[in-house]
Amino acid sequence: MRERILDKAQELFFRYGVKSVTMDDIARELGISKKTIYQHFEDKNAIVYAGVEHHFACDRTIAEQMQNEAPDPIAEMVMTSEMMRQTMAGMNPTAIFDIKKYYPQAWDLFSKYKKEFILEMVKKNLLKGIEMGLYRSTVNVDILSRLRLEQVEMGLDPYLFPLGQFNPLDTQLELLDHFLRGIVTIEGLNLYEKYITKQLSTPISTMAFFSQKNTY
Amino acid sequence: MRERILDKAQELFFRYGVKSVTMDDIARELGISKKTIYQHFEDKNAIVYAGVEHHFACDRTIAEQMQNEAPDPIAEMVMTSEMMRQTMAGMNPTAIFDIKKYYPQAWDLFSKYKKEFILEMVKKNLLKGIEMGLYRSTVNVDILSRLRLEQVEMGLDPYLFPLGQFNPLDTQLELLDHFLRGIVTIEGLNLYEKYITKQLSTPISTMAFFSQKNTY
Repeated sequence: MRERILDKAQELFFRYGVKSVTMDDIARELGISKKTIYQHFEDKNAIVYAGVEHHFACDRTIAEQMQNEAPDPIAEMVMTSEMMRQTMAGMNPTAIFDIKKYYPQAWDLFSKYKKEFILEMVKKNLLKGIEMGLYRSTVNVDILSRLRLEQVEMGLDPYLFPLGQFNPLDTQLELLDHFLRGIVTIEGLNLYEKYITKQLSTPISTMAFFSQKNTY
Repeated sequence: MRERILDKAQELFFRYGVKSVTMDDIARELGISKKTIYQHFEDKNAIVYAGVEHHFACDRTIAEQMQNEAPDPIAEMVMTSEMMRQTMAGMNPTAIFDIKKYYPQAWDLFSKYKKEFILEMVKKNLLKGIEMGLYRSTVNVDILSRLRLEQVEMGLDPYLFPLGQFNPLDTQLELLDHFLRGIVTIEGLNLYEKYITKQLSTPISTMAFFSQKNTY
């Protein structure tokens, strides 16, 4: 039941934002009583926290799988952008802003996740790309991995990118595209452009996208 | 006298940081009484605020001059990095962190300056570069001008780039280099690399650096 409540809550949060979804809404949608929910979660705060925790756990598994399966670090970055596209396409951007504004404990999980997990993933990616000659050997891994980390958060900042003016997904994709172009060698750029041409011709594709090994 | 106090205060702040310089230090260095200082400034807070204000006014004049004199937008960016190099080389990085931490009103000037002036300068630079074929036509000017803005501040964030581990000048230069590489066309890249090769061979050069029009 705990799992079902979390799944439904996440679905509703994604669709309507976090603030506007009540415990009553979650109970009604599941056809259960609020009392049942309170047997598993102390309050809505606890649901949001557990939901974010669960989301990052999944995200982490997928990211590690991508790092293992991607034929090269550029493919991994393109797969990451594809994953973002899929996650964010169906998401009401208010959800993220609500968490940032009203659920600081859950938001702290994001900071922790960034520092402990994403930073290491990005560093590994950069080192491998340099080793393979796809990224410039002059890339400063410590500085640019932190830049990438900040970019992810920056794109979610409604003061910098007001919602009425920017679509958070477009922002994330533009930042990632710029990040990659800033680090690649000519060889890496050619590979990247090959990937995105392919990606654009098969919109919202799956991870199978890269499963056939490329013959470059 | 007001001007002399400001100049001396700025010199001391740059050398020792802001927090550790007292009104007594400023008076002693100028060979005047503290009473004289208080005739011009209510307290140290007022000196810091006026100092930052003065600094940005100069900065703005130089930046506008560079935008007018630079033969192209890439040269303008390289000149900006040269200016940063000269400003920051002699600066104790604690100065910036002290202002951020202890003088929030003066720090607010920085945010204001960023939004009202730097953002417009960067946008103009990007549009001109696209027009000249030096930057990709696919560059999203609104998103990437904001990225550049955030990069400037990010490089000054001691939580993200701890002082013991990073030199703020190196960080700023790496971020600017990456920013440019992320937006250039092949033509722009060639021009950029020509400039930095020249720059590296004439370290800490002056603005005269670009005064002879390039013949590309």
